[in-house]
Amino acid sequence: MARRKRRHIRRPPPGAAPGTLVVDPSLPPPALRVMQYGPEDFVERKLEGPDDLARVLTAPEGGGTPHAVTWIDVDGLGNVDVVARIGELLGLHRLSVSDIVHVSQRPKAEDYGTYLFVVLRMPDPGTEDAGDTEQVSLCLGRNFVVTFQEQQRPGDCFEPVRKRLRESVGKIRAAGPDGLAYALIDAVVDAYFPAVERVGDRLDVLEDEVLERIGPTTLRRIHGVRRDLINLRRSVWPMRDAIGTLLRDHSNLIGDSVRVYLRDCHDHAVQIMDLIETHRDIDASIMDAYLSGVSQRLNEIIKVLTVITTVFIPLTFIVGVYGMNFHTEAGPYNMPELDWRYGYPAVWAFMIALAAWMLVVFWRKGWIGSGHR
Amino acid sequence: MARRKRRHIRRPPPGAAPGTLVVDPSLPPPALRVMQYGPEDFVERKLEGPDDLARVLTAPEGGGTPHAVTWIDVDGLGNVDVVARIGELLGLHRLSVSDIVHVSQRPKAEDYGTYLFVVLRMPDPGTEDAGDTEQVSLCLGRNFVVTFQEQQRPGDCFEPVRKRLRESVGKIRAAGPDGLAYALIDAVVDAYFPAVERVGDRLDVLEDEVLERIGPTTLRRIHGVRRDLINLRRSVWPMRDAIGTLLRDHSNLIGDSVRVYLRDCHDHAVQIMDLIETHRDIDASIMDAYLSGVSQRLNEIIKVLTVITTVFIPLTFIVGVYGMNFHTEAGPYNMPELDWRYGYPAVWAFMIALAAWMLVVFWRKGWIGSGHR
Amino acid sequence: MARRKRRHIRRPPPGAAPGTLVVDPSLPPPALRVMQYGPEDFVERKLEGPDDLARVLTAPEGGGTPHAVTWIDVDGLGNVDVVARIGELLGLHRLSVSDIVHVSQRPKAEDYGTYLFVVLRMPDPGTEDAGDTEQVSLCLGRNFVVTFQEQQRPGDCFEPVRKRLRESVGKIRAAGPDGLAYALIDAVVDAYFPAVERVGDRLDVLEDEVLERIGPTTLRRIHGVRRDLINLRRSVWPMRDAIGTLLRDHSNLIGDSVRVYLRDCHDHAVQIMDLIETHRDIDASIMDAYLSGVSQRLNEIIKVLTVITTVFIPLTFIVGVYGMNFHTEAGPYNMPELDWRYGYPAVWAFMIALAAWMLVVFWRKGWIGSGHR
Amino acid sequence: MARRKRRHIRRPPPGAAPGTLVVDPSLPPPALRVMQYGPEDFVERKLEGPDDLARVLTAPEGGGTPHAVTWIDVDGLGNVDVVARIGELLGLHRLSVSDIVHVSQRPKAEDYGTYLFVVLRMPDPGTEDAGDTEQVSLCLGRNFVVTFQEQQRPGDCFEPVRKRLRESVGKIRAAGPDGLAYALIDAVVDAYFPAVERVGDRLDVLEDEVLERIGPTTLRRIHGVRRDLINLRRSVWPMRDAIGTLLRDHSNLIGDSVRVYLRDCHDHAVQIMDLIETHRDIDASIMDAYLSGVSQRLNEIIKVLTVITTVFIPLTFIVGVYGMNFHTEAGPYNMPELDWRYGYPAVWAFMIALAAWMLVVFWRKGWIGSGHR
Amino acid sequence: MARRKRRHIRRPPPGAAPGTLVVDPSLPPPALRVMQYGPEDFVERKLEGPDDLARVLTAPEGGGTPHAVTWIDVDGLGNVDVVARIGELLGLHRLSVSDIVHVSQRPKAEDYGTYLFVVLRMPDPGTEDAGDTEQVSLCLGRNFVVTFQEQQRPGDCFEPVRKRLRESVGKIRAAGPDGLAYALIDAVVDAYFPAVERVGDRLDVLEDEVLERIGPTTLRRIHGVRRDLINLRRSVWPMRDAIGTLLRDHSNLIGDSVRVYLRDCHDHAVQIMDLIETHRDIDASIMDAYLSGVSQRLNEIIKVLTVITTVFIPLTFIVGVYGMNFHTEAGPYNMPELDWRYGYPAVWAFMIALAAWMLVVFWRKGWIGSGHR
Repeated sequence: MARRKRRHIRRPPPGAAPGTLVVDPSLPPPALRVMQYGPEDFVERKLEGPDDLARVLTAPEGGGTPHAVTWIDVDGLGNVDVVARIGELLGLHRLSVSDIVHVSQRPKAEDYGTYLFVVLRMPDPGTEDAGDTEQVSLCLGRNFVVTFQEQQRPGDCFEPVRKRLRESVGKIRAAGPDGLAYALIDAVVDAYFPAVERVGDRLDVLEDEVLERIGPTTLRRIHGVRRDLINLRRSVWPMRDAIGTLLRDHSNLIGDSVRVYLRDCHDHAVQIMDLIETHRDIDASIMDAYLSGVSQRLNEIIKVLTVITTVFIPLTFIVGVYGMNFHTEAGPYNMPELDWRYGYPAVWAFMIALAAWMLVVFWRKGWIGSGHR
Repeated sequence: MARRKRRHIRRPPPGAAPGTLVVDPSLPPPALRVMQYGPEDFVERKLEGPDDLARVLTAPEGGGTPHAVTWIDVDGLGNVDVVARIGELLGLHRLSVSDIVHVSQRPKAEDYGTYLFVVLRMPDPGTEDAGDTEQVSLCLGRNFVVTFQEQQRPGDCFEPVRKRLRESVGKIRAAGPDGLAYALIDAVVDAYFPAVERVGDRLDVLEDEVLERIGPTTLRRIHGVRRDLINLRRSVWPMRDAIGTLLRDHSNLIGDSVRVYLRDCHDHAVQIMDLIETHRDIDASIMDAYLSGVSQRLNEIIKVLTVITTVFIPLTFIVGVYGMNFHTEAGPYNMPELDWRYGYPAVWAFMIALAAWMLVVFWRKGWIGSGHR
Repeated sequence: MARRKRRHIRRPPPGAAPGTLVVDPSLPPPALRVMQYGPEDFVERKLEGPDDLARVLTAPEGGGTPHAVTWIDVDGLGNVDVVARIGELLGLHRLSVSDIVHVSQRPKAEDYGTYLFVVLRMPDPGTEDAGDTEQVSLCLGRNFVVTFQEQQRPGDCFEPVRKRLRESVGKIRAAGPDGLAYALIDAVVDAYFPAVERVGDRLDVLEDEVLERIGPTTLRRIHGVRRDLINLRRSVWPMRDAIGTLLRDHSNLIGDSVRVYLRDCHDHAVQIMDLIETHRDIDASIMDAYLSGVSQRLNEIIKVLTVITTVFIPLTFIVGVYGMNFHTEAGPYNMPELDWRYGYPAVWAFMIALAAWMLVVFWRKGWIGSGHR
Repeated sequence: MARRKRRHIRRPPPGAAPGTLVVDPSLPPPALRVMQYGPEDFVERKLEGPDDLARVLTAPEGGGTPHAVTWIDVDGLGNVDVVARIGELLGLHRLSVSDIVHVSQRPKAEDYGTYLFVVLRMPDPGTEDAGDTEQVSLCLGRNFVVTFQEQQRPGDCFEPVRKRLRESVGKIRAAGPDGLAYALIDAVVDAYFPAVERVGDRLDVLEDEVLERIGPTTLRRIHGVRRDLINLRRSVWPMRDAIGTLLRDHSNLIGDSVRVYLRDCHDHAVQIMDLIETHRDIDASIMDAYLSGVSQRLNEIIKVLTVITTVFIPLTFIVGVYGMNFHTEAGPYNMPELDWRYGYPAVWAFMIALAAWMLVVFWRKGWIGSGHR
Repeated sequence: MARRKRRHIRRPPPGAAPGTLVVDPSLPPPALRVMQYGPEDFVERKLEGPDDLARVLTAPEGGGTPHAVTWIDVDGLGNVDVVARIGELLGLHRLSVSDIVHVSQRPKAEDYGTYLFVVLRMPDPGTEDAGDTEQVSLCLGRNFVVTFQEQQRPGDCFEPVRKRLRESVGKIRAAGPDGLAYALIDAVVDAYFPAVERVGDRLDVLEDEVLERIGPTTLRRIHGVRRDLINLRRSVWPMRDAIGTLLRDHSNLIGDSVRVYLRDCHDHAVQIMDLIETHRDIDASIMDAYLSGVSQRLNEIIKVLTVITTVFIPLTFIVGVYGMNFHTEAGPYNMPELDWRYGYPAVWAFMIALAAWMLVVFWRKGWIGSGHR
């Protein structure tokens, strides 16, 4: 398990003018895609750059009715100018643009009057690493939704929504921009369920390990789960608040029918927080069990040491006694045993009896035999 | 004690359309039962499927007065279509139906205008495992109550309510659908009392064990109780909130006389939370005592080791001295003791005195004798 | 210190009709006493049963003015029917009667319109066991107060109030039923002061013990104090809330002059909670000191072991060397020391020097001598 | 460091009439001092008893204008009757008098309509013992302030205020009774700064000790700081609330200009709470470091034990081998080494090589040499 | 890593008149700088003292239009009189002046009607020591901003703002005094990002160390990070509240357009708090891993000790047996092995077999070989 490194976050230096934009060169250049649709129509286009977007946004005015909803889907934030230009075209506040570009924002929802600005964090579906998340920014306007993702990933969690739009599953094309925004937020929130479940699986494995067979990487993995849960919590907790803000907020950009669905989405966020807290409690309990297991193993080793030492040290003393060189001829009390006919067997008998007695005592104390009584 | 495995929860993939239903094939197919009653009348029927239900719901219109209350009691959620059809017949929102089917919901109460939707979690009365709960969904309409249980169990906690209805105990038949809903919610809440009490009994046993005789499964069982309490808490805490929501909510589906009873039910939920928190505190205290007990046992073992080693090592040294082969004839200072008349007894006397002195020292330090001073 | 067992609580089975009453046969049968008084008059009677009570309650109507206040003082809850009948006579709601009988209620205050229902928990003044409490239920009506105690105890905490009534101490007879209710609640709350103080004394003893001389029962007693504090907290915390409810509640059953006194009583409850929390903090700190003291003792034992072993093992090796049987005649390098004139004294001198040097090293490291440096 | 004993608090027995006063005979008898002043005038008198006070309070009515402010400064609460009589003269509620006399009150502020009643706790400036506090009660009336202190101390924290009054420093004489009350409360609050700072100094010393040289009293002192912080917190937390109550309260006894100063005083209380919480965190961190330091010392001792034992045990075995008495003449394989010319030097060479190899291994493992790698 | 000492804070003695000023002689004397500007004009001056300031403030009245904004930038608080005189010139309340001079204030925002008073704490950009902060006080008036910094530092976090003013970057010159105040507050808040990031880097290093190679300073550094985080938290938490107060406050000194930016600034403060809390959690987890790593090392050492002792003690016993001096001629059972032809090789063979068997047992138990099974 290679250790991931905390990424250093690009942000303007302290004291810079508000709205100063700093490029993070490690991010891929933005790929733009536009989906325009209404209950009856649907057009999807890949764009070259923000100038294409200007054309697309104004095109239908030349003839025909404009599409009801325009979803501008931006993947990759490696080019600050593109993002700034999109913001200009859509009338976004420069603080929003700054929050979109500096991808270390805490999830939040803000009402800028003409649009709602929502920052979310999306778990990375491709890795085992539950704690790694990516920023998703979403602006919901009168007739558009624009989303910005940090990275370009083939199987991101918006893909099912794109598919539902293309195939016109359910009433999604009729649901308006707020309906689309809900669908996208819901997709991000629900993406945490498998992430949290994977953490749960890791805890199950660790629990077995700790109670049965502590391994060399157990500690590191318990610590890893803890870190991931701390990071997940940091993403989900403010996300729940952000959705709650959308629910309570009286912006007329969100219709009442969509608000019912958002309540469901809020429920999911609460449920995920709940799971994360439960997992944290379980992780703490496993850590305690681990520490206690380590002590117990120490106990067992020391018991073996004690048994061996305690049995052999007196015996060694006894044989030492008869290794002394007192001259038997110097006096009748000087080691007469050495001349006895059965001296040697007697010593053996005594030593065996002593060892047996000690073993019985230890067995009674529970130091030998099965388990730790 | 076989370890239960965390069940993986079936839910629609992230990004699916809201209201998408996913079957959990491990659940049994639904069994439908309908009880229709008023203060004077009572009919109970087992139904084959949702089509029967449609007939039952409309039947009394053909003649006679309709029953005051209809309780549709669904056991088992293994067939999504049946549930969806029932929802349709009763006019349930598709988000409610989705919550009914995906049995991992957090307890909650929601007002959908024409009906109240309540999700509860019911402890499993048949197992020792206090943390295992099953989802119960309840919709309270103008003249009906519909309940959905995850599993079919012979002795579920609704059985006493069914019996009271059949035998017309108290005023239950006159109490209207809100009265029935209260009776059912109360039954679910009260079912936690024995569950929590069983946990209390396990803690009592563990407490004795930890203070008197730590066993090989003690740690595992303390950890198990902790896990169960975490799970119970996760069920009861939001249930309390849900009942609180029903209490404060000004829905006219719940009459004032029933509200008094709901307050009592809320009290019970608070009392259970209280017990759970108390048990958690006690479990934490027992864990501390366990860890401390394990250290103490280590202390005792090491004391024995120290006493034995410390007594015999000097003695072994002494006998080693007289095992040296210095030639007594080489000089008058070369081990003249070996030739003394009482050399050997003198060494024994000295060694016994030394050992006795050390034992006295150890006894004074409290290393031998009763208890750990 | 005999371990008290958690009492199993009698309550109706889950799903039973609300207001079902379950007898706890371990409780004594109820003893009824009635005190009727006004500013000028006072009558005290022992009653045989609830029928006597009916007579007493209606008697003064036959002639003379009725007494201003009637206090019905019920001790012991072993007979459910008696309680139910009293409830009927006084117009108590059946949920109140149920709460009175099932003596495991959390303290609370409820306004039933015609009367206020208060549940309190009273510490047992007779035992050392601070955590053991008994339920006291109190109903305050227009012109009566009725109290129910679980057990009959000669020196319960209502006795001083009874005495003040009998001897007309202060203005208690003029204070009306709300004044009496206050006096009783105040008596219950103040009874916690000595209970908490006894816990404080136990902590003082434990603190000394832990810092100076850990005994065989220290752990058990620290754990016992923790348990008692958990139980006390569980009683006092909701009691504080209940009195707070009475304070804020705009029931006209409590006059403004009594409300000032209730605020004082609320203050006392807050003060007791405060003491309990402080004691919990101190208990936690003592537990930490205990664990640390146990480690330290282990350290000391191991130091002794190390010193002894480390001093004697090299010496034993040396005497072992000269116990080897190499034949000195086989070559000039084969243990010529054995034939030296001062071989033996030289070895002794070397060994003493070695041991002295090692002892100096250990003393420098702080392993021998006073304290653990 | 002598251990202070928790003082047993005098209070009326549970169930006593409200306002019952209990003497604490350990307190000194009250010393009364009165300061009467206005912007232009100032009189200070020592009084013999409450009767003097009655005269003083009514005296100026006989002629001349009454003083604007009267400060009655009572030191020592050893005589209940004096306090009761003062309360009567000033029209204090008997609950206030009871709170003044029973010096174990939690800080609080109460509005009795004609006067504000404030209870504070003052740290003892004379001792090292930060946790020891003394009750100060203050009543602010229309034209008087009366303060009660538990003990008589020469350098109490009101002395600077007395001096400012005598010397007419700043505008204190013109500030009215509310200005005086503020000055007194501020003096009490600010007295916690040096007390908390002393605790900070003790923590600094302990931190050095724990990281460098654990002493025999370290544990006891860490525990002592913890206890003091628990006690300080218990005094300051409710004091902050009490000042907050005064701030928010719309009593017309406190003017708006004084309210600005009280806000500053509230800020100080918040700052002190902040320091206390920070110190608690640091104390907890030091406790952790202590426990970890103790384990580390154990590690080091055991390393030494292991190194010595592990080096000498094989050597002892080897010399034991050549101490065996097999008869070389019985066969050519029976210890021919004994007869070799260089047998003895060879054994020494082998043993030295073995010991050197083991030392190298241990050095590589970091068991010997500098620090614990 | 030299340990920094907690600085003792200068403040007036308890009981001093409010607004008493105490000099901290360790602070440098104040350096005054004034920047006056409007959308079109910009003047920067260094002043000798407060008298210069008086001239500057009134100068433009003599001719020409006054500048829109005056920023008085005071560095160093070593001269109380200068600060007091500036306060007088600008009409600051003496409590504000007192808070400016006594540089231990908790961050806060207060509305004095004619000006807003904000206290912030600025991290020291020059040191590694994240916990060290310096007080910055800011008063925002109708047409001026005045800032006070504790110390004079070349690269303080206001420098970028000064530069933006000089170079007229963005709209800063047109933004009015509230815009300047925002820019300064934002600069202070953003200065915490690099400080917190440095702590994060230290945690990364510690995490690696704890999981791979515990060093002699690891504990001290984990403790150091904990202390720094405690201190950072103490600065940032109230700063967040202060900015929140500015946001909610309805002072007309802050325009609505600036309020939007302040919301962003509040977001940053929340984000920093979040990071600090996350780092605290991670630090706690690392501390746990450290303690557990120390135990594990102890385990390993004791395993080695046990293996060596357990292998050699029985062998030493055996060689001791054959070192006994029983006279073979005294009887046929007296050590006949000594005369056997292959006695010596047989003993060796037995001993090697015994040692091998024991090593296999230990290997099976996981005591020798790779890792700790």
